[in-house]
Amino acid sequence: MTKTSPAKTNSGRFFEDYNVSDVLRHAVPRTVSGGERALYHALYPARHALYSSDEFARRSGLPKSPIDDLAAFHLVFGKTVPDVSLNAVANLGYAEGRWLLPVYEGDTLRAESEVIGIKQNSNGKTGVVWVRTRGVNQRDETVLEYVRWVMLRKSDLDAPAPSPVIPELNKVLSVDQLVIPQGLDFSNYDFSQAGETHRWGDYAVGEKIDHVDGVTIEEAEHMLATRLWQNTAKVHFDTTARPDGSRLIYGGHVISMARALSFNGLANAQMIVGLNGGAHANPCTSGMTVRAWSEVLDKAETSAPGVGAIRLRLVATAGGEPFSIKGEDGKYLPHVLLDLDYWALMPL
Amino acid sequence: MTKTSPAKTNSGRFFEDYNVSDVLRHAVPRTVSGGERALYHALYPARHALYSSDEFARRSGLPKSPIDDLAAFHLVFGKTVPDVSLNAVANLGYAEGRWLLPVYEGDTLRAESEVIGIKQNSNGKTGVVWVRTRGVNQRDETVLEYVRWVMLRKSDLDAPAPSPVIPELNKVLSVDQLVIPQGLDFSNYDFSQAGETHRWGDYAVGEKIDHVDGVTIEEAEHMLATRLWQNTAKVHFDTTARPDGSRLIYGGHVISMARALSFNGLANAQMIVGLNGGAHANPCTSGMTVRAWSEVLDKAETSAPGVGAIRLRLVATAGGEPFSIKGEDGKYLPHVLLDLDYWALMPL
Amino acid sequence: MTKTSPAKTNSGRFFEDYNVSDVLRHAVPRTVSGGERALYHALYPARHALYSSDEFARRSGLPKSPIDDLAAFHLVFGKTVPDVSLNAVANLGYAEGRWLLPVYEGDTLRAESEVIGIKQNSNGKTGVVWVRTRGVNQRDETVLEYVRWVMLRKSDLDAPAPSPVIPELNKVLSVDQLVIPQGLDFSNYDFSQAGETHRWGDYAVGEKIDHVDGVTIEEAEHMLATRLWQNTAKVHFDTTARPDGSRLIYGGHVISMARALSFNGLANAQMIVGLNGGAHANPCTSGMTVRAWSEVLDKAETSAPGVGAIRLRLVATAGGEPFSIKGEDGKYLPHVLLDLDYWALMPL
Repeated sequence: MTKTSPAKTNSGRFFEDYNVSDVLRHAVPRTVSGGERALYHALYPARHALYSSDEFARRSGLPKSPIDDLAAFHLVFGKTVPDVSLNAVANLGYAEGRWLLPVYEGDTLRAESEVIGIKQNSNGKTGVVWVRTRGVNQRDETVLEYVRWVMLRKSDLDAPAPSPVIPELNKVLSVDQLVIPQGLDFSNYDFSQAGETHRWGDYAVGEKIDHVDGVTIEEAEHMLATRLWQNTAKVHFDTTARPDGSRLIYGGHVISMARALSFNGLANAQMIVGLNGGAHANPCTSGMTVRAWSEVLDKAETSAPGVGAIRLRLVATAGGEPFSIKGEDGKYLPHVLLDLDYWALMPL
Repeated sequence: MTKTSPAKTNSGRFFEDYNVSDVLRHAVPRTVSGGERALYHALYPARHALYSSDEFARRSGLPKSPIDDLAAFHLVFGKTVPDVSLNAVANLGYAEGRWLLPVYEGDTLRAESEVIGIKQNSNGKTGVVWVRTRGVNQRDETVLEYVRWVMLRKSDLDAPAPSPVIPELNKVLSVDQLVIPQGLDFSNYDFSQAGETHRWGDYAVGEKIDHVDGVTIEEAEHMLATRLWQNTAKVHFDTTARPDGSRLIYGGHVISMARALSFNGLANAQMIVGLNGGAHANPCTSGMTVRAWSEVLDKAETSAPGVGAIRLRLVATAGGEPFSIKGEDGKYLPHVLLDLDYWALMPL
Repeated sequence: MTKTSPAKTNSGRFFEDYNVSDVLRHAVPRTVSGGERALYHALYPARHALYSSDEFARRSGLPKSPIDDLAAFHLVFGKTVPDVSLNAVANLGYAEGRWLLPVYEGDTLRAESEVIGIKQNSNGKTGVVWVRTRGVNQRDETVLEYVRWVMLRKSDLDAPAPSPVIPELNKVLSVDQLVIPQGLDFSNYDFSQAGETHRWGDYAVGEKIDHVDGVTIEEAEHMLATRLWQNTAKVHFDTTARPDGSRLIYGGHVISMARALSFNGLANAQMIVGLNGGAHANPCTSGMTVRAWSEVLDKAETSAPGVGAIRLRLVATAGGEPFSIKGEDGKYLPHVLLDLDYWALMPL
């Protein structure tokens, strides 16, 4: 007789396994190198100059070119999956995301999350859990943080409903909540090398930009991207995990694809410093041709020399009319994949 | 009239081209960087912390995080293909594999093999050749070694049969044959960061673990993986090379995929130090969903602080019942892809 | 009412937007690392030892292993696409390509092009533009240069035809126009580690070599390769951009694939130093099995110790008879993808 050990494998947490104030220390720290940077450029049409050239970054007051802000985000996010979203029915939203320090080659990141909210749904079968996640480097400095909330199944339907705690979250980060990287200075910015001439002053609130280009998604690419950040949720890899045999594409892949496509029209929206909110409106699967458009939601000055902040809505689509997003019922149209609200830094 | 030069290309060696004691110095040394490490993480769901984080590695007594032991193995193996297995009918087995030194970014590896056995088959058309391969770094230190044997075709059927030499190989390496990396110390091991709490003492001989997760294989990924190690055998790349138009997936891709999947249940089986044996039971082709299970075959203490050795059987499958492996006829069931027997190091 | 901003996105230049002597400073400088090197090895069966091993490179008189010459070429080429070929009907040719300095990890490259020729076609709808492109490193040293010419559409058919300027270009670079990397010395060359014994003296002008191996192209791989060099022309990525739903594969992908395949027979043709000309004879799409053959066109001695120059014709095909290239009408046969004429350096 052999003994089998289901108990040794991680079957993920269920709704009843979370309590407000729990701190989850996520596993598998990761040291980043030039390899992660190169792969990010191979996986996305990423061309923002600050993340491509050490020379450009130095001219902007940084010691060298950091890894892409979204790469840092994915790296931290990936670590949370086994503890937060392995049994998630839905990834409901993001709030209060802030990039606090650039991440450079050689840095080692780990992640931890605090449960800040919990609410059982009226059906008694599922509930919502809010966590605030922090990415921390080898010097115990927080490099980024964000809140996300997910809907989770209950495993034990008889587990009592917890007292609901719904966190109060900023709908939008104000500009003084944003952290500008130390030393950042765009007063000597090279627009020619950055790829576009449009500066902060050239963008008007309400303006919309169709980013024109499209990329048709292939299975191998989104799997490489997702694994790169050690996100191993099986729906992204295992065609037997979903009834129709398709793989569900990691939402972060769509975020990075849309952001990279937005270079064409927003080449100078260099650094992402705030994530106000985001919704993965509809699932993305391979074969879809992803396009993107942006809307300028707000603008603000900052204290850093030559640096303005711009608040952007970034929408990823697969088909559909340009700039269409919601139907008369207020729901996302079926071709909308992503609706993201973020702050970026731009030369004045 | 133009002259063509078949003689300038490598058509591979045939059975009659090998003699016992021949030493083959394999071509194309390779310097590894952070790029190879990042690609390994993108290609496999690899999460063992020692290979992901410099900080974790230093806490374990190493100078920094090495490249994955299997990446080092593939790198050495790839170099042997043009000289050993270009005309192989079958890759029959492995034995006496030992990892002797961790491989770090900046190291340059080359490989050489000694023919240690030879035996013509009774059909007179094929034969078996045994080679002991060593991977050597830029300081002429052997970083790993293993024996493998392959069945090769004869090109000249009239070539005389050599005197058979069948090497005596250990079926299993004893624990004192294993080399523990200098300085390795798991007495300060961080189980939380490693991802699981199960330590050496928690595993029982005979215990089996279903690693749960699955990955459906895509063509582009296995080709990237195989080329990364400069293994250019055409069956892996050229759909016209096999009658059914499928590509045969490099067996090492299945080894790495299964090992990475085994993180879920064996997250603390950090370092691979011995390869007792292995069989590529059935061919793997794209579209298969690879899963893995392990069985604890043995355990032993080591002289290194906090470090135990665990002998594991790692089985990769594509479908089939959990833990099924051979039929009543003693042959591997059709869904079994890999049956590997290895020693790993684990915190006590 | 929302304002949309087509003006903010780059719709590319048209024929009438070019004038002779214009200098285009291309955007997005790029710092290369070990990541780009590793990806190059994962994407192509590249095995030339000088680009694989720091030790081999040092023995050849270089400080360490450079990134592949073609990787440097693609990196520079990619930057020119938004300014030169976004609206190209056809990429017509290359000439006077020279590699002037090896590119190493840590180098940052930018690119600029000068318009050196222009000629409207008799149909009045298209024209040909010639540019000389230079890749420049962080020390303002030119690392490579080449001329290419493209056929572009006119956007404004009423724009006047410019005075035609057709540059005089060398059909072939003479050996004294080639730049040998400083310090290069093949007098201590290790043929065993390089992979083949054939030296410069073993090749005869007129000799043809069938490189034997083939690689069937996958979508994910050519997109990774093309994006890696920040070439974002939509025909390579967007299946809705072409009527038949196929992606057109970046011609440079075929160049690198063919060059890597040519290792088998030309393992010692280590460094590419000159590009005499090249034609993308027919489009390449995924599913094609790319093979290659070479012809020795010329040979010359150089002043560097142990270093000879060899002029090679490299032909990539998808099917067809070996060594067939043009029909009776003088046009490329349909299975010919690439016809490239280059100088390489080889040990005497």
